[in-house]
Amino acid sequence: MLNPVSDALRDALRAALPPACFKELTPAYLEEPRGRYKGADALLLAPGNTDEVATIVKACNKARTGIVPYAGGTGLVGGQINEGDVTPVVLSLERMTAIRSVDPVENVLICEAGAILQSVQEAADNVDRLFPLTLASQGSARIGGNLATNAGGVNVLRYGNARDLCLGLEAVLPTGEVWNGLTHLRKNNTGYDLRHLLIGAEGTLGIITAASLKLFPKPTSQGAALMVVRDPQAALDLLALAGEQFGGQVSAFELIGRMGLDFLAETGPEVAIPFDTPPDWMVLIDVGSFGEDPSAGLEQLFAEAFERGLVSDGVIAQSLAQRDAFWAIRENIPEANRRIGSVSSHDISVPITRIPEFINRAGQSLAELGDFRINCFGHLGDGNLHYNVFPTQGRARADYEAERPKVKELVHDLTHALGGSVSAEHGIGRLKVADLEKYGDPAKLAAMRAIKHGLDPNGIMNPGAVLR
Amino acid sequence: MLNPVSDALRDALRAALPPACFKELTPAYLEEPRGRYKGADALLLAPGNTDEVATIVKACNKARTGIVPYAGGTGLVGGQINEGDVTPVVLSLERMTAIRSVDPVENVLICEAGAILQSVQEAADNVDRLFPLTLASQGSARIGGNLATNAGGVNVLRYGNARDLCLGLEAVLPTGEVWNGLTHLRKNNTGYDLRHLLIGAEGTLGIITAASLKLFPKPTSQGAALMVVRDPQAALDLLALAGEQFGGQVSAFELIGRMGLDFLAETGPEVAIPFDTPPDWMVLIDVGSFGEDPSAGLEQLFAEAFERGLVSDGVIAQSLAQRDAFWAIRENIPEANRRIGSVSSHDISVPITRIPEFINRAGQSLAELGDFRINCFGHLGDGNLHYNVFPTQGRARADYEAERPKVKELVHDLTHALGGSVSAEHGIGRLKVADLEKYGDPAKLAAMRAIKHGLDPNGIMNPGAVLR
Repeated sequence: MLNPVSDALRDALRAALPPACFKELTPAYLEEPRGRYKGADALLLAPGNTDEVATIVKACNKARTGIVPYAGGTGLVGGQINEGDVTPVVLSLERMTAIRSVDPVENVLICEAGAILQSVQEAADNVDRLFPLTLASQGSARIGGNLATNAGGVNVLRYGNARDLCLGLEAVLPTGEVWNGLTHLRKNNTGYDLRHLLIGAEGTLGIITAASLKLFPKPTSQGAALMVVRDPQAALDLLALAGEQFGGQVSAFELIGRMGLDFLAETGPEVAIPFDTPPDWMVLIDVGSFGEDPSAGLEQLFAEAFERGLVSDGVIAQSLAQRDAFWAIRENIPEANRRIGSVSSHDISVPITRIPEFINRAGQSLAELGDFRINCFGHLGDGNLHYNVFPTQGRARADYEAERPKVKELVHDLTHALGGSVSAEHGIGRLKVADLEKYGDPAKLAAMRAIKHGLDPNGIMNPGAVLR
Repeated sequence: MLNPVSDALRDALRAALPPACFKELTPAYLEEPRGRYKGADALLLAPGNTDEVATIVKACNKARTGIVPYAGGTGLVGGQINEGDVTPVVLSLERMTAIRSVDPVENVLICEAGAILQSVQEAADNVDRLFPLTLASQGSARIGGNLATNAGGVNVLRYGNARDLCLGLEAVLPTGEVWNGLTHLRKNNTGYDLRHLLIGAEGTLGIITAASLKLFPKPTSQGAALMVVRDPQAALDLLALAGEQFGGQVSAFELIGRMGLDFLAETGPEVAIPFDTPPDWMVLIDVGSFGEDPSAGLEQLFAEAFERGLVSDGVIAQSLAQRDAFWAIRENIPEANRRIGSVSSHDISVPITRIPEFINRAGQSLAELGDFRINCFGHLGDGNLHYNVFPTQGRARADYEAERPKVKELVHDLTHALGGSVSAEHGIGRLKVADLEKYGDPAKLAAMRAIKHGLDPNGIMNPGAVLR
């Protein structure tokens, strides 16, 4: 059992830490983007360096008081929001934003965990390198949170998830010990991979305080296309063709359904669709190459796909501005979703060959359950769909309270039955703890509990997240 | 404390397992490639499926008897060899070699842990896909061992280590529970990444019984070149140029020192060096591209590097046979090393910009210590050098018994001082347990012990390997 923040703990922390660490707990720390969680009272601390993080963790471990790590606050599953009635410390990384080094020869950037993702991208860009992690909230998400949740985004197909972009970590473990694992090395087989264990553990096994990140040479030429595909199966066939044509140079392959375009037309933000009628299904293909301009290859790809009956129309970007315009369609869909207000949103992945079956079966089952609008879009190349269910036109999400759990269960059951994951890139947080218990492998769950207990015997790290 | 295999355990296993699981412990199971370890007596079991593995692990856990997992037996650090005087079970994966499925659309291959690496490569090739893990012992190494040790090899620069090629695992945990984690998914953020914990744990946290592996489209055209470089710094500058020219399409970038060529001339195997005099340093560059033939790009690269004074001579392969001939030079060096007989061999990595400094300083220090020949070669693109120290001509390795520990310490101390790793790709096994204790981060070591204790409270899994 955990203890709430006591006067004794407060006094000990006041004595050990500089005043700058103590901040007012404003409402911003108690909210999250989708408004599902509302944080309870907490002691907010914003340490300025790793030693101060260690001081806090040691004191909390001794007092058996919980710590909720807080990075950018952009997580969508409530991992950053304490709900319980046992007052914890909220440990914000906002003051630890230094980019410690950028090395374009080693292709390594080292930064503190509070660095904003976009500033990491910019620091890489300044030395003509690419840090490829790219996601909607990059202007406020912090790299420590991105790593703790193993963030995904639009470039996973080519560059992998956040974990694949990380060479090493510095972290404060639940005992307060500091692990100095900020390596430049690409190969290092000396013991268990603590890095990959902390990445994706959502702050339940320690606090990431800094990271060494992989940089990449920037492709010398960019190409993008929007292609109207017959259906999701055709999109998959097109993906395979694109793989054969461009190898690993396809940076993104995004599926966009008609409903997303309708939502944009209904609520804005305003975007230009370069087709006479909004297509039922289209894909956004982004290619970054070394050497040849990919536009010719994209034309070839379109021609071959057209001949096979996979695509009926398409536009290849003639400029970077037009490429940006294509991306604006994709990137504004989440905002349109927010304006409409979903009944239930799902971040699922299935084996890519099962995607057409998933879309068909989920759509049929939902139609039997009630009147919904479905906006299905996402990272087709990774098998990751954002499968979001909305009220039918003229009704509000509040009308669907009774259906919400049924919608979620239906979508998650089907995902699981097809060998998929009920959290492809958002994590478990507090929202999906029961889902993990329901769908998770029992041996894996037992192993997770043993690891948690071994590393955090007092259970102080992000209590209530991931594991109950 | 562990118990030796008892009559009661033998009887229980005989009752629970079919006779085919019981095999004679021939000397092959007690030897390893470098002859440093000699296995002690053991009960050899070769289960035919995952359930039988679980039966064995459960019985051993109950009896508190150690299990040494045995895959291809090609490991170079004694991880597969039991030395102790407490008789364990040696669990061989040799009967679990099935390729369960190959899916060229998903780009996923699922196989049992005993599958020979080369047969996995061939199964991928049969569906026009690439499984890129490539190493000298691929004809006998088994995929379970490759994963347990996070094997490296020549294509890490482009495709990553073994861990990067694995989507999911099936494994028997130390309690005997089976974790079914054979996923096709590229994105799955549901709890701690048990896969990456078992990969590289060298059989100390469980037995990998099957794996789902990533396949890749095969490059449509191959190019290779040998270039004579001024020195290791020039090799690094050439690597950077190659990265800018080819992006992620450089599959291998191998450094070869003069000594390796001298050894080949002295002992064979016979290979053809396409230069008038054997160069002090050369690199083998391998490029696999989609679209353009890389030969033109390699010529451009040579021209630019020549202009900058990085390279003085070079040959670009005009055929696949010539490419194979280039690779034969690189691939026969380990055999020449074996014939000469090293005083001490080191599998180290340093941040790539420190490689020239490492080579200079190590060479100077060794010259002060005694008369040695140094064969330094390896995966420059990964910062991974095989830095092997040999007797001077006319002397034998037996003459150097007194120097051996000093050589090793000198090389490892310098590696560590430069931010490097004393085991880049071979692992810890039994050979480097003391090195891990000496050079490892204390917080990481404490965390490793906590994890080991949490998952394997009786300490039955590969006792004596990685952690004491």
